[in-house]
Amino acid sequence: MSKKILVLPGDGIGPEITAEAVKILNACREAGLDAELEEALVGGAGFDAEGDPLPESTLAKAKAADAILLGAVGGPKWDTLEDLSKRPEKGLLGLRKNLNLFGNLRPALLYPQLAEASTLKPDVVSGLDIMIVRELTGGIYFGQPRGIEERNGERVGFNTYVYAESEIERIGRVAFEMAQKRGKKLCSVDKANVLEVTMLWREVMNRLAPEYPDVELSHMYVDNAAMQLVRAPKQFDVVVTGNMFGDILSDAAAMLTGSIGMLPSASLNERQQGMYEPCHGSAPDIAGQGLANPLATILSVAMMLRYSLGEPTLADRIERAVGKVLDQGLRTADIAYPGTRQVSTSEMGDAVLAAF
Amino acid sequence: MSKKILVLPGDGIGPEITAEAVKILNACREAGLDAELEEALVGGAGFDAEGDPLPESTLAKAKAADAILLGAVGGPKWDTLEDLSKRPEKGLLGLRKNLNLFGNLRPALLYPQLAEASTLKPDVVSGLDIMIVRELTGGIYFGQPRGIEERNGERVGFNTYVYAESEIERIGRVAFEMAQKRGKKLCSVDKANVLEVTMLWREVMNRLAPEYPDVELSHMYVDNAAMQLVRAPKQFDVVVTGNMFGDILSDAAAMLTGSIGMLPSASLNERQQGMYEPCHGSAPDIAGQGLANPLATILSVAMMLRYSLGEPTLADRIERAVGKVLDQGLRTADIAYPGTRQVSTSEMGDAVLAAF
Ligand SMILES: CC(C)[C@H](C(=O)O)[C@@H](O)C(=O)O
Ligand SMILES: CC(C)[C@H](C(=O)O)[C@@H](O)C(=O)O
Repeated sequence: MSKKILVLPGDGIGPEITAEAVKILNACREAGLDAELEEALVGGAGFDAEGDPLPESTLAKAKAADAILLGAVGGPKWDTLEDLSKRPEKGLLGLRKNLNLFGNLRPALLYPQLAEASTLKPDVVSGLDIMIVRELTGGIYFGQPRGIEERNGERVGFNTYVYAESEIERIGRVAFEMAQKRGKKLCSVDKANVLEVTMLWREVMNRLAPEYPDVELSHMYVDNAAMQLVRAPKQFDVVVTGNMFGDILSDAAAMLTGSIGMLPSASLNERQQGMYEPCHGSAPDIAGQGLANPLATILSVAMMLRYSLGEPTLADRIERAVGKVLDQGLRTADIAYPGTRQVSTSEMGDAVLAAF
Repeated sequence: MSKKILVLPGDGIGPEITAEAVKILNACREAGLDAELEEALVGGAGFDAEGDPLPESTLAKAKAADAILLGAVGGPKWDTLEDLSKRPEKGLLGLRKNLNLFGNLRPALLYPQLAEASTLKPDVVSGLDIMIVRELTGGIYFGQPRGIEERNGERVGFNTYVYAESEIERIGRVAFEMAQKRGKKLCSVDKANVLEVTMLWREVMNRLAPEYPDVELSHMYVDNAAMQLVRAPKQFDVVVTGNMFGDILSDAAAMLTGSIGMLPSASLNERQQGMYEPCHGSAPDIAGQGLANPLATILSVAMMLRYSLGEPTLADRIERAVGKVLDQGLRTADIAYPGTRQVSTSEMGDAVLAAF
């Protein structure tokens, strides 16, 4: 049966970058991928059209899809919305939660052709290849109770950081399995010396470890992990952590490469249905100018083919095509430097297509 | 009246580094500082001697002191203690909470003599001088309810991230005042697009801003802040944030300098009583070998003189002495590189004393 792919361009540069990724998806269909593409609105675009960052029709299409390609959401236009539930971010969080996309894979990979772009010294980051596995549907992002209320004559804000054993176990298994397929090292990040919820996290990781005897499990406090990412990032292979710490550490790790315009991500549920999106945001300041880098979105398509569509060969072909284009010296503005050839968003997409 | 200084050597390298700082404190007394020194046990040392990481006698002495100099706490010896309340960290957290030391100042300063030590490219970090103001007695570190309990047939861990307006306001004022004395830029870090508690945080910061018209206030999400610290750290002057985000970001910022053996910190309450400690930990692996860098602890004494003892001139003298010793090319193991002269912990202390 034909697979269903839902494309959600979103806001800012979202429409431009997903357009390039769709070119590649169409090339994959010509190369044998049996898939149908559909498009829908999300984020600020959803709010503007239907008053809701996650319109019902979009959610229904998302549930029916095998895989979702998301551009990016958000922008200053919607940042002043008093009602938080109408903000573009809620579209994203709603998709994650409703589709139960608990397993977020965020690779931080340094492309040798782009080593210059890093703010770190070459020997510290050359060959960097970290996979951050972030829990995405629990923790403090979704914990109850939450809110702002009056207590003793003043307002108090509160959120709840909560994990059940079963939630920790399922993300733990994703991470252990990922480590088995990679360098066989897993570092679990917590703050078990202060937070009870992460004591339980550590305990569950330790309990799973004997089932994955080929994986070396270690534990690190989150403050130290932030430090070690700066000091010696190549010590890491797979990192597993909760929603909030994962948000922070995956962005720091991505920035180590200096080229977050290159980094894709996947968010998966238990039946490998997935949402795929670039690590970078909607960059409203450069939207519509052909300056955006479509490669993270194109590489997100590769992850989609690998994890949700069972097409690893096509995934490899996309990744190799991106490598070739970099070898040719083509660069969008964010990764251009003297001696390379600066191209627009669509020129970059076309170049990948030609190299595919 | 004579000031009271309590010295808490703690664990690991704590006793070695505080010993060197005490040499400098004694030199300050000879130079006119009217102060008495006392010593007490805390952390693992407190647990070993009295079964408590914060013995009652230590807490009483701490309350009576004008300023506290802490070495470091913790080590593998106590990491397996089942009862979290007996762990060395609880000694530290107990001191912070009982003395109401809500204002944690963590400078990330790159010494020009040590620019080499950073893993970042020189142009990215040269001249780096950030002050992180971290709230230290609230937030998720101390929020109730907390614990691990059975729910629906499985265990669940939970902690509460909570701030009252008054708590946010008082740390906000510390940060605005700090910015007034420095580069007049304050960046408040939150996750206001997801967490209600930090929406309130942002609101209170905005409400304070008009009282400090000379300070330019900005806001940044914590994931972006982690990224910007790696990408372009010199954009920051003063950063203010909650307990947990401050723990993570201050360690990342410290590591940007490459020499966290150099970084002091201060934790202050409303009446400027303070606890002073190096940013680095107890480094049990190198304890007792004369390898530890005492400069962060010596520079913590300078902060103590400035913030709690009203002796800015002596503080300046210590900081200048440290600068001179670095100029002389003296280095402990952690910051030594070819062309410098490696010295032991006590040799370094003696050199600062000679330059004082
Ligand atoms: C936009 C925001 C809600 C989101 C998050 O915090 O998860 C983003 O930062 C991310 O990491 O995907
Ligand atoms: C030891 C630990 C409890 C402490 C903290 O998390 O505050 C430490 O990391 C620090 O930053 O001072």
